Amino acid sequence: MELMIIETIDFRKGKVVLLDQTILPLEERLLEIESVDRLCDSIRSMEIRGAPAIGIAAAYGVLLELENVLRGSMPDPPSYLFDHGADTASIVEFGVDAETITARLLGAAESLSQTRPTAVNLFWALDRMRKAIERCSDDPARLFSEIPAEAFAIHEEQLDIERRIGRHGEKLLSDGMSVLTHCNAGGLATAGFGTALGVIYAAKANGKRIKVYADETRPLLQGARLTAWELGRAGIDVTVLCDGAAASLLSSGRVDAVLVGADRIAASGDAANKIGTLGLAVLCERFGIPFYIAAPWSSFDLSAPSGDDIVVEFRNTQEVTSFQGRRTAPDGIDAYNPAFDVTPAGLITAIITEDGIIRDPSEEGIRGAYGGGSARSNET
Amino acid sequence: MELMIIETIDFRKGKVVLLDQTILPLEERLLEIESVDRLCDSIRSMEIRGAPAIGIAAAYGVLLELENVLRGSMPDPPSYLFDHGADTASIVEFGVDAETITARLLGAAESLSQTRPTAVNLFWALDRMRKAIERCSDDPARLFSEIPAEAFAIHEEQLDIERRIGRHGEKLLSDGMSVLTHCNAGGLATAGFGTALGVIYAAKANGKRIKVYADETRPLLQGARLTAWELGRAGIDVTVLCDGAAASLLSSGRVDAVLVGADRIAASGDAANKIGTLGLAVLCERFGIPFYIAAPWSSFDLSAPSGDDIVVEFRNTQEVTSFQGRRTAPDGIDAYNPAFDVTPAGLITAIITEDGIIRDPSEEGIRGAYGGGSARSNET
Repeated sequence: MELMIIETIDFRKGKVVLLDQTILPLEERLLEIESVDRLCDSIRSMEIRGAPAIGIAAAYGVLLELENVLRGSMPDPPSYLFDHGADTASIVEFGVDAETITARLLGAAESLSQTRPTAVNLFWALDRMRKAIERCSDDPARLFSEIPAEAFAIHEEQLDIERRIGRHGEKLLSDGMSVLTHCNAGGLATAGFGTALGVIYAAKANGKRIKVYADETRPLLQGARLTAWELGRAGIDVTVLCDGAAASLLSSGRVDAVLVGADRIAASGDAANKIGTLGLAVLCERFGIPFYIAAPWSSFDLSAPSGDDIVVEFRNTQEVTSFQGRRTAPDGIDAYNPAFDVTPAGLITAIITEDGIIRDPSEEGIRGAYGGGSARSNET
Repeated sequence: MELMIIETIDFRKGKVVLLDQTILPLEERLLEIESVDRLCDSIRSMEIRGAPAIGIAAAYGVLLELENVLRGSMPDPPSYLFDHGADTASIVEFGVDAETITARLLGAAESLSQTRPTAVNLFWALDRMRKAIERCSDDPARLFSEIPAEAFAIHEEQLDIERRIGRHGEKLLSDGMSVLTHCNAGGLATAGFGTALGVIYAAKANGKRIKVYADETRPLLQGARLTAWELGRAGIDVTVLCDGAAASLLSSGRVDAVLVGADRIAASGDAANKIGTLGLAVLCERFGIPFYIAAPWSSFDLSAPSGDDIVVEFRNTQEVTSFQGRRTAPDGIDAYNPAFDVTPAGLITAIITEDGIIRDPSEEGIRGAYGGGSARSNET
C-alpha cells in the first residue's frame, strides 16, 4: 500500500510554499512565502506548526534569505534561483560581497530562532544551517550549493526518518486496536508523513486496522481540524472528542494505547508536547494504558538535563478567551495559556525514534541509544 | 458582607422566567417561558442547566401546566394566577374537571422527566411534585394551593441549602488559597447562590481571599462563559484555562484544591459531574491535591448502588464538531460526546452537603449522614 505524503512545506521556485494550517479543514490553501519576516510570522501564527515541520521551515528560511539577497543584487535576475525539484542554479553574476551574504544568512537564522521557544527542532535545524554557512567561510561561492543542499537534506532526511519511525512504531500496534492521539503529530506537523500518525499510517500499510480517537486539542483545535482531516484523507476511522472527555474514554477500556509526538525531549526522557499531553499520561498510568511518544532524534535536547530545563511557550490569552475572533469569556478576563506541558519520563512507556524503540526511557537509555546506538538493538 | 444571589430561574406572573445561559456572557437575556413544551426545550438546549436549577425548573414546569390548564378553562381569565412573589390566587371559577387537571399535571411531569437523564435533581423534584398531586387526590381544589406551595418550597429550600453548603464548605478554604473549578456549579446552576461556587462566595463573605481557576469546559464552555461571568461579578479573581491545561496548572503547585459540583452521587459515593471532572480527580490523586465535591442531598441517588448505575447522557456530536454554528472538524466526522463522567468515590477527598462534610465518602458514610445524620457531627 502506498504511504500518503502531505505537501506540508517545500521550497519551490525561490519561495517557501506551505499549506496554511490555520484554515484547514475548511479550506486547503497554499501560501507562497517570499520573505523571512513573513515566514517568521507564519511560524508564530502557526500557519506552519509541528516540531519537525518548523525545523524544515527554519532551514528553508535561511535558503529563502540567500535567494533574496542574491536576486536582489542582480541587475537582471532570473525569476528564481533555487527549487527543491531542480538542480541548484549556477550563479555567476551577483552584486554583493561574501561578508554581506553571510551576515544576511546569519541574521535570518537569528530572526527565525526567535519565533517559538519550545520545539527544539527549530534550533537544531538552524544549527545545521549555521554550520553549513561556516563550512563555506573559506570559499563563499560554495554557499550557493551548500545552503540549498543542507536545507533540502534536512527536509528529505526528515521524511526518511518519519518512515523509519513508522516502521518501528507500528510493531507496537496490532490489528483492531484503538489509539488515542492528541494535537497533530501527522504529515501536517512534519515533512509530510508524520511521527505519531506516521506509526498509524505504517500500521495501516501493513494491513492493520487501527481506530483513532483524536482529542480536539484546545485552544487551536489541531486535533479536530488537522488530525481528523489527514486521517480521514488516509481512510482511517477517526472519532474526535473534547480534551476533557479523554478521561471518560480511557476509563471505559475502549483505548489500547495513547500515542503522541513531542516538541522537545530532555536527556532524562521528560518530554514537552502540546498542552494536555501530561494529563493523558497521568490517565494512562491510572488506567493501565501504554503511553507512547514518537519523535525523531532532532526533537531530543540532551543539553537539557530534565523537563525543568525546557522553556515552555506561553501564548496570547485570546486563544482561550475567544474563538475565531468571537469572544467566549467575559471581557478582560485573564487566562492561563501555556502551549506545552512536560510529561515526566516515568509516565512514558516507550519513545519511538527512527533508530528503534526506547522502552522505559531514562537518561542512560537515551544517551546509549542516541544516534542509532542501542535503540536499534532495543527494538521489539 | 452580602451574599450575591443570581436570578437564574423564577416563577413570575404565570410564567417561568429564566436567564438564557446559552448566550451569556455576551448578553444577559431573560426568557419568559409560557408552556411546558418550551420549558422542556430550554432544559434540553441548556438555556437552563445545572442539576439543582433543572430540579427547580421541573417543579415550576408542573406549576406552569396548572397555570395553563386552569386559565385555558376560564371564560375570562386573569392575566395570571400564580406568582412567586404574591399570595396564591384564590381560584373559584374554572371549566375543567379534576381528573383532567391531574392527568395534565402528571403528563407535564412525564415530559419534563424525559429532557435530560443524568442529573437526579430533576427526578427528585418531579417526585416531590407527583407526591403533592397525590396528596390532593381526595380534594382536587387543594391542588391550587399545594402545587404552587411545593414548587416555591423546592426553590426556597434549595437556596437555604446552598447557603448551608457554603457555610460548611468554606471551612475547607483558607485565606489566600487558589481553587480550580470545572463547568459551572454557581448561582447559574442552582437557586442562585451555588454549590461549589457557593463555598467560594461564603469564604469571601468570611473575609478570605480565594483565587479561582476556571476550566473553560468544552464543549459548551460553561466555565469560560458562566463561571468566569459570575465570579467576576462577585469581585473574585478568576483566570480561565483550556481543560487540557489543568494538568500543567495542577502539577505546578499553584492550586490548593479542586472544587466542583455533582449531577448525581451514587450510594457508593461515586459521583457523576460534567465531562472532564474525572480527569481532574485523577490529576489531584497524582499531584496530592484535595478533590472536593459540593452538592445537596437532592443530588444523591441512594437507589444507584454505584457509578455504574448512573445513566450518562450522550449529546449531539455537533457540540464537538462545530463551535457556535461554525464547523471546526471535517464534514461528517464522528465525535464522542458524553455530557458527564463518573468519578469513583476513592478519588473524592470529601463531599460537602447542607448537613456537613462527608470525608472519604463511602456507602456507610453516606447512608449514615443522609438527611442530617452523622454528617452534621462530621463537620470540620
